[in-house]
Amino acid sequence: MRTQVVIVGGGPSGLLLGQLLHRKGIDTVVLERQSRAHVLGRIRAGVLEVGFVNLMREAGVAERMDREGFVHHGTILAHGEEQIRISFEELIGRHVVVYGQTEVTHDLYEARDRVGGKSVFNAEGVTIHDADSDAPYVTYTANGTEHRIDCDYVAGCDGFHGVSRQTIPTGIRKEFEQVYPFGWLGLLSETPPVSDEVLYSLSDRGFALCSMRNATLSRYYIQCALSDKVADWSDDAFWAEFRQRLPRAVAERLVTGPSIEKSIAPLRSFVCEPMRWGRLFLCGDAAHIVPPTGAKGLNTAASDIHYLYHALVQVFESGETEGIERYSEQALARIWKTQRFSWWMTKLLHRFPEQSEFDLRIQRAELEFLRDSRDAQTVLAQNYVGLPY
Amino acid sequence: MRTQVVIVGGGPSGLLLGQLLHRKGIDTVVLERQSRAHVLGRIRAGVLEVGFVNLMREAGVAERMDREGFVHHGTILAHGEEQIRISFEELIGRHVVVYGQTEVTHDLYEARDRVGGKSVFNAEGVTIHDADSDAPYVTYTANGTEHRIDCDYVAGCDGFHGVSRQTIPTGIRKEFEQVYPFGWLGLLSETPPVSDEVLYSLSDRGFALCSMRNATLSRYYIQCALSDKVADWSDDAFWAEFRQRLPRAVAERLVTGPSIEKSIAPLRSFVCEPMRWGRLFLCGDAAHIVPPTGAKGLNTAASDIHYLYHALVQVFESGETEGIERYSEQALARIWKTQRFSWWMTKLLHRFPEQSEFDLRIQRAELEFLRDSRDAQTVLAQNYVGLPY
Repeated sequence: MRTQVVIVGGGPSGLLLGQLLHRKGIDTVVLERQSRAHVLGRIRAGVLEVGFVNLMREAGVAERMDREGFVHHGTILAHGEEQIRISFEELIGRHVVVYGQTEVTHDLYEARDRVGGKSVFNAEGVTIHDADSDAPYVTYTANGTEHRIDCDYVAGCDGFHGVSRQTIPTGIRKEFEQVYPFGWLGLLSETPPVSDEVLYSLSDRGFALCSMRNATLSRYYIQCALSDKVADWSDDAFWAEFRQRLPRAVAERLVTGPSIEKSIAPLRSFVCEPMRWGRLFLCGDAAHIVPPTGAKGLNTAASDIHYLYHALVQVFESGETEGIERYSEQALARIWKTQRFSWWMTKLLHRFPEQSEFDLRIQRAELEFLRDSRDAQTVLAQNYVGLPY
Repeated sequence: MRTQVVIVGGGPSGLLLGQLLHRKGIDTVVLERQSRAHVLGRIRAGVLEVGFVNLMREAGVAERMDREGFVHHGTILAHGEEQIRISFEELIGRHVVVYGQTEVTHDLYEARDRVGGKSVFNAEGVTIHDADSDAPYVTYTANGTEHRIDCDYVAGCDGFHGVSRQTIPTGIRKEFEQVYPFGWLGLLSETPPVSDEVLYSLSDRGFALCSMRNATLSRYYIQCALSDKVADWSDDAFWAEFRQRLPRAVAERLVTGPSIEKSIAPLRSFVCEPMRWGRLFLCGDAAHIVPPTGAKGLNTAASDIHYLYHALVQVFESGETEGIERYSEQALARIWKTQRFSWWMTKLLHRFPEQSEFDLRIQRAELEFLRDSRDAQTVLAQNYVGLPY
């Protein structure tokens, strides 16, 4: 089999790239290690930057998002009893859209089906060959049969544990990492969200986050010890702790209910450099992970897709390789700024075991400065709604 | 002897307070442990916030400063070969004034002499008594004789090693501290400054700072190991290292010459809470120390003096104690924000022994974000020229 671009990984980044390229007449095959049901069942946050939203529109898959997504004009940072509202609208005239990653993926699969894009699920042993040559190819096994796809380029959209990054030789690849000394325990429940806007709360007991999927589906998180297990946390224990980490005025209107999902995720900052090796391009989690504070995971993937999409269109339409050659540098410049923001928000809003009394006061001073400085709020807003591509 | 306010410490904060109070008809005595020559011989930086400048004017001691001080409309942050100019003027329409602390102190003593303010030098064994009562008094020894001054209030302006802070009982006093893993080696030379504006430079070899006293007197610094001694650094060694830490375009125009002063200072962040105990008020270094990055030392002292001056005028003129009761809270709110800024600038511009590769990239990303974001530059400018009182 032959195609122009093999997309390794059938998550939202790979599918978005495939859809964008399709509209420019560029042929792709998506290879996914899991089943389609598995991919669609993943629960992830969904605060979308306008840059992401615009890419979805450009890909022609924005109809349901534009109809059902929630436009958020601000977010709230709480600190003890104090609430600091960051009004994106007033500060910079912009907004974000809340629309679950699961929905994004669903819409992208529907679109791919409509245009007859090739997707292979349960692809085992995916291997990328000769990425540093002019004739790369990808092999995999499906239903017990070995397959080979020859192609011009390979997009590595297969996440942190995928093969794409591992394909870049260790002598060339450099990895940067920071692991945080806590995790996030998340709970999904069919209750009305306690806050209309995403609310980040730092209390003496640690961090809590109020987010939502829609008017009747709440997604809440608390910072927990890395050693904690989901089994350690009954729903009652979660609600009791969560409530104590919110300003009283918020906690008073909290509606609790049984969890329909509960999970613990560690927090990590990770970047791999370079993001291109020959004709292989890393995108999204394959190249970088941000801690979830600030909701940048999916949005950083989108920024990679933006750069790669334009680079591929350029090379297929005109043979010009400038975009391809600059892909890694361009993508990384924005990625590192977003990493900085996610790291900063994580430091600002969590309790760290190693924090000294001085560190705690500096953290408080930073929140008070943010409360009192419109300029500091503007910087936060610019980062939150997304830096320009 | 009796006076209204005993000012412990004859440095610039104590003298500025004395001068301000004098103009409101409030009587003070300044007690200084050292000789007048010693106090006037101290060499310190002199980037003055407009708030400080305005206090000097209000105190009637701004004539020479207004004539000889240099108005700086911006500052420069260099990072490798790149120079980021922060234009205070363009960003926020404000500026700072470069005028040495030695000159400030000199002008303040001249003014105190003119108005016949009482100052005692070489005051030994200064002790503050009954500060938590309605009748505090201060004792000291001068020329072998014991003296006692009864007063209404005591202003503790006697620096980090002074007795004022120690007077607050340890059960009431809480101290916050961070020591940085490096020092600043400073060199003063009679050479034209390499940069018209203060220039902060981060290179792979560490931090360097180009500052100036006037058109023919340069003050330069480099980050050095805490274990370094001045004797380890010949002038030639200093210039060689300093030059390597500047962008080439700056290093090329560097004029070197023999040092007329050379010293090493450790970097420390320190805050004492509360800043008032009964009728004793801590001001400046007696209550807090900032690392010198960002030049906030003298300016934080001025902000304390501002609050204390207004509180004392209020109580002496109307008997109203609201300002006095709020002094600690008001002063600390601004102090902690300035601490945060000084800590942030120090972290941004130095190499730390414990920095991981990830930390180095975040530091670079922060500088690149600052380079590219007018909003981030505005936040820096607002802090640099001084937050509102």
